[in-house]
Amino acid sequence: MAVRAAVAGASGYAGGEILRLLTGHPEVEIGALTGNSNAGQRLGALQPHLPPLADRVLEVTTVEALTGHDVVFLALPHGQSAAVAEQLGDEALVIDCGADFRLRDPGDWERFYGTPHAGTWPYGLPELPGARDALTGSRRVAVPGCYPTAVTLALFPAFGAGLVESDVVVVAATGTSGAGKTPKPHLLGSEVMGSMSPYGVGGVHRHTPEMAQNLSAVADEPVTVSFTPTLAPMSRGILATCTARARSGLTADRLREVYDKALAAEPFVHLLPEGQWPSTAAVYGSNSALVQVAYDEAADRVVVVSAIDNLTKGTAGGAVQSMNIALGLPEETGLPVTGVAP
Amino acid sequence: MAVRAAVAGASGYAGGEILRLLTGHPEVEIGALTGNSNAGQRLGALQPHLPPLADRVLEVTTVEALTGHDVVFLALPHGQSAAVAEQLGDEALVIDCGADFRLRDPGDWERFYGTPHAGTWPYGLPELPGARDALTGSRRVAVPGCYPTAVTLALFPAFGAGLVESDVVVVAATGTSGAGKTPKPHLLGSEVMGSMSPYGVGGVHRHTPEMAQNLSAVADEPVTVSFTPTLAPMSRGILATCTARARSGLTADRLREVYDKALAAEPFVHLLPEGQWPSTAAVYGSNSALVQVAYDEAADRVVVVSAIDNLTKGTAGGAVQSMNIALGLPEETGLPVTGVAP
Amino acid sequence: MAVRAAVAGASGYAGGEILRLLTGHPEVEIGALTGNSNAGQRLGALQPHLPPLADRVLEVTTVEALTGHDVVFLALPHGQSAAVAEQLGDEALVIDCGADFRLRDPGDWERFYGTPHAGTWPYGLPELPGARDALTGSRRVAVPGCYPTAVTLALFPAFGAGLVESDVVVVAATGTSGAGKTPKPHLLGSEVMGSMSPYGVGGVHRHTPEMAQNLSAVADEPVTVSFTPTLAPMSRGILATCTARARSGLTADRLREVYDKALAAEPFVHLLPEGQWPSTAAVYGSNSALVQVAYDEAADRVVVVSAIDNLTKGTAGGAVQSMNIALGLPEETGLPVTGVAP
Amino acid sequence: MAVRAAVAGASGYAGGEILRLLTGHPEVEIGALTGNSNAGQRLGALQPHLPPLADRVLEVTTVEALTGHDVVFLALPHGQSAAVAEQLGDEALVIDCGADFRLRDPGDWERFYGTPHAGTWPYGLPELPGARDALTGSRRVAVPGCYPTAVTLALFPAFGAGLVESDVVVVAATGTSGAGKTPKPHLLGSEVMGSMSPYGVGGVHRHTPEMAQNLSAVADEPVTVSFTPTLAPMSRGILATCTARARSGLTADRLREVYDKALAAEPFVHLLPEGQWPSTAAVYGSNSALVQVAYDEAADRVVVVSAIDNLTKGTAGGAVQSMNIALGLPEETGLPVTGVAP
Repeated sequence: MAVRAAVAGASGYAGGEILRLLTGHPEVEIGALTGNSNAGQRLGALQPHLPPLADRVLEVTTVEALTGHDVVFLALPHGQSAAVAEQLGDEALVIDCGADFRLRDPGDWERFYGTPHAGTWPYGLPELPGARDALTGSRRVAVPGCYPTAVTLALFPAFGAGLVESDVVVVAATGTSGAGKTPKPHLLGSEVMGSMSPYGVGGVHRHTPEMAQNLSAVADEPVTVSFTPTLAPMSRGILATCTARARSGLTADRLREVYDKALAAEPFVHLLPEGQWPSTAAVYGSNSALVQVAYDEAADRVVVVSAIDNLTKGTAGGAVQSMNIALGLPEETGLPVTGVAP
Repeated sequence: MAVRAAVAGASGYAGGEILRLLTGHPEVEIGALTGNSNAGQRLGALQPHLPPLADRVLEVTTVEALTGHDVVFLALPHGQSAAVAEQLGDEALVIDCGADFRLRDPGDWERFYGTPHAGTWPYGLPELPGARDALTGSRRVAVPGCYPTAVTLALFPAFGAGLVESDVVVVAATGTSGAGKTPKPHLLGSEVMGSMSPYGVGGVHRHTPEMAQNLSAVADEPVTVSFTPTLAPMSRGILATCTARARSGLTADRLREVYDKALAAEPFVHLLPEGQWPSTAAVYGSNSALVQVAYDEAADRVVVVSAIDNLTKGTAGGAVQSMNIALGLPEETGLPVTGVAP
Repeated sequence: MAVRAAVAGASGYAGGEILRLLTGHPEVEIGALTGNSNAGQRLGALQPHLPPLADRVLEVTTVEALTGHDVVFLALPHGQSAAVAEQLGDEALVIDCGADFRLRDPGDWERFYGTPHAGTWPYGLPELPGARDALTGSRRVAVPGCYPTAVTLALFPAFGAGLVESDVVVVAATGTSGAGKTPKPHLLGSEVMGSMSPYGVGGVHRHTPEMAQNLSAVADEPVTVSFTPTLAPMSRGILATCTARARSGLTADRLREVYDKALAAEPFVHLLPEGQWPSTAAVYGSNSALVQVAYDEAADRVVVVSAIDNLTKGTAGGAVQSMNIALGLPEETGLPVTGVAP
Repeated sequence: MAVRAAVAGASGYAGGEILRLLTGHPEVEIGALTGNSNAGQRLGALQPHLPPLADRVLEVTTVEALTGHDVVFLALPHGQSAAVAEQLGDEALVIDCGADFRLRDPGDWERFYGTPHAGTWPYGLPELPGARDALTGSRRVAVPGCYPTAVTLALFPAFGAGLVESDVVVVAATGTSGAGKTPKPHLLGSEVMGSMSPYGVGGVHRHTPEMAQNLSAVADEPVTVSFTPTLAPMSRGILATCTARARSGLTADRLREVYDKALAAEPFVHLLPEGQWPSTAAVYGSNSALVQVAYDEAADRVVVVSAIDNLTKGTAGGAVQSMNIALGLPEETGLPVTGVAP
């Protein structure tokens, strides 16, 4: 008996990626597809890479359209999920790809988003210690931000084992799909091809408190994060270069041993063999994360680099992985583990 | 009972794509992986996008290594397949992704390849009239060239219905993976990013006689093809712009009607709705081909544009599709129909 | 005594390129810069690649703002140039980068642009036979379209020498800057990177009659053009693959001889040595055009490939080259002849 | 009376960029062009973007070929400059684009390059305090590494004014031309397009001690640098994200004031207005560097982002700028200050 899934925001990049994954998910039947400005259009005109759904027509996003599904994916602009979720009740598993229910601290939320805090849902990063238990059987999932996914997967083993202390510095490059499908001048192909540029510099990017929240929880003490996101000339992918100050006594061997152990059982996170470094190309369209570590003795810093696909593991894949856990399906069901490369 | 498949040339781009598809194929178990200069290496170092096969080690390409499999994929340099195939005998289905067995006319072969003609195998383009019958139960398959795949899918309905006559002009743009993984100066990222350039101009590209062969067969009269390939700044994809002189009396409606009918039953070839044009992005990593047609009255030419992924439908996907037919499996088994976009 | 130049439409891509060239032009002093929606903004915020002009502020495009300059460059949307030009009178050299005054046949204009024909100005493609005479001393210049520039430079020698007859087929790839700076979904970096796609297929692109006009004039008989433009994943550049049916008796030697002679004296158009083909990278930011020819005997077609930078030789460079001629300056003044590569 | 310049290593990317700049330099006449494996070839086949030099033929790199020039640019592999320079004597100004004479500490040199230290030459980063004096009239110049150029320009004002202390963390993205023109598998277009990847992680990149040397000199105390370079899908450009721990009492206003003052008189380094961030596209082909600063109070770190063109300001432009100073020419002569964008 198939799981019936609706997708709200089916015309955007996150929505399109959810649909790409769901068309390959053996337990899911795709129900209502909704949008707002694009309601009434054929999906084929909006998401031409999904021929099996080309003739489906987008409905307006309403509670009525979304009701009657086992799972509802919300790929809506920030701040719109709470109202919808409230009316859907607990019959449906509601998976929010927006930010609304990620942060625990209302002060953080208000400082970075400027609206009242809506609450906190079980956090859809299964690899984080304790997360799988919270997700199992849950009716609500807050899918992490794409950057926090990459950064948390990179640093949780080091903080969990007490190898590093605070003063985290992260510089991450993202593909342009992370900025969404709404046309803006700086996102034109003419502007982004051949160009790297930063944005949200100086601690103002909204994903910063989410990273600090995750790492502080694992470290069991406050962790500061200096985070600089940069826009790279590629459609997909995040490469996160993450460093933290080493605690005294660290060795390269101990570092590797800790990561090996922390990641060995993870189906989607792979510590690469020594000498091999992650690339975003290797996880293109895949739910895998690739991780490599180094200890820079002269600078006394641990450097961890992770690569994910921002739309797959960073959004839609994380959402489907969490759905699988919440519904009691095998966690890997329907999720690509190979990238499309070269 | 799984079909056991070996891949000769597993370190190259075609070999990597075959493996990506086979890891997702429910009926296939992956056997020997062979290479030459890379024998002895972990596949993870050569194809980092395939984590499930990362610890597999490449063997040297020998008949012994390839023996004992139900299917052997040959992704070898041109001219090396004949010797291997001969020794494998008829126990195995041998699928050659090289050019060796594509051309029927020994004169064409010798003119374009400069070596003696090795013969002709059933042609792995199932959509070509008659091809499915020839493939069913066959122990040998010659996978078409990537360009001939794109061009033949674009023009066979028009020639089949007698809508156009000769003087075909094709200009196609390909992603750089079509040029292979052997490092050459003009294939460096620094050279290809931001640049379009032609090569093999003036009728000398080796795929030219293969296109003429396919179209002449469908037209039942000799068809000339002026073919210009160009290298585009992208990793994957072929966009083929194909024109042919219209026969008198053609109308745009008749043209669309013919294509609609010719392609309606094809699982992988899609005539787009009017007003929508193919893009290579929409078939990235997919076995689909997208096609659109126009009739330019002033120039009295039919223009058909097709988009495929050169590594998927253009090579590995065509190979797996043909394997499915040859083995009596449902033709679509294990083949992605959605692209990874954006 | 410097030539004082104003640029209307200074915030767009054509306007920015005109300014880039004028800042390096030893005889020009940059006067008024105008825009519409961007009036009042610092140029540095709109064209960050032009530090010497960063603190200049855009005025509203009015006749008053443009009056009092020796040269006025109009980089306005199609249809807006006529009204401005009329009021400027003959004191100023007015150089229109739009389409308004390119076509001689009012029927062509109305069919492709849908508005009444405004007239015809001397055509700013100095390489076209007769063009330099018409430009010398002129107070008005119609800068050619970017595609017609690439195609005309590729084919005028062949038509001029009677080597080819009609049935021209052109497929050209352009960088995205050719589509302008107004944000549209299909021009987003996420959409264009990794993708080739056609547009304006089937004889409907507005540059088609301009190509036919130029080639028919040189051939002294009507020439049809089947033209398909494609959008390539690069910011700049046009690669035009142009073919025409050979007249009987043509040889490859004769073809090369004709091109050699026709282009030998041109400062900006270079016939490459045999065996070398043009690339758009080699003319990035340069006013040069690279050309190569081949004769495909089997298809009985001449194939000529040309590469230009759509913003430089294809727009702003052609405009400045024409300005130099009109004002009696050496034609090459201030124009880059080297590309920025790799 | 023109300055006669020779270029050793004229077939590579650095050599090509030196030539591009010299063809536009009003005081320079280009003399011998040398190479090794490419000796005997036309420059047009190797550097097709330089039509004015297309018919020049490369000589073998020998002291004889280089003798008799006023300036000799060495764009040779690391370790080859010392022998050549020694034999050229002091008649010529020798400008080394390699690493051989950059580091002052022989221990640093030996640790990172593994060969005996050859000495130290005046350092070709004119913006560094004291550098212009050392360059004036010098017969030897060591051109800085591309990354150290970007990082030193970003951080020298902060260290010079004592605003920050050690624990510098730098993550920089470079275009692929920084990796040179020798074909290697990981530099293929197929591999780099759509991909970000790190290399030389953990303090092992050879530019690390050069950054530490520059910043320590300005700070007048030892500065540690955690440096991670990443390869971005673009041909040119470096975006360096540089952070350092703030000293107590820092404010955002004070930070901006210091940078404003330090950079105000620099012809090639521009502090952007608040709210505007650098992009590599804006300095494409230009000798400009763009800089922006932020103070992240929560993380207590200063973040400075700089953008340069690795081949222009990062190599060839820095070399020509230093040549101008050494020869007593105006510093800006022949150097482009506008980027080629979009």
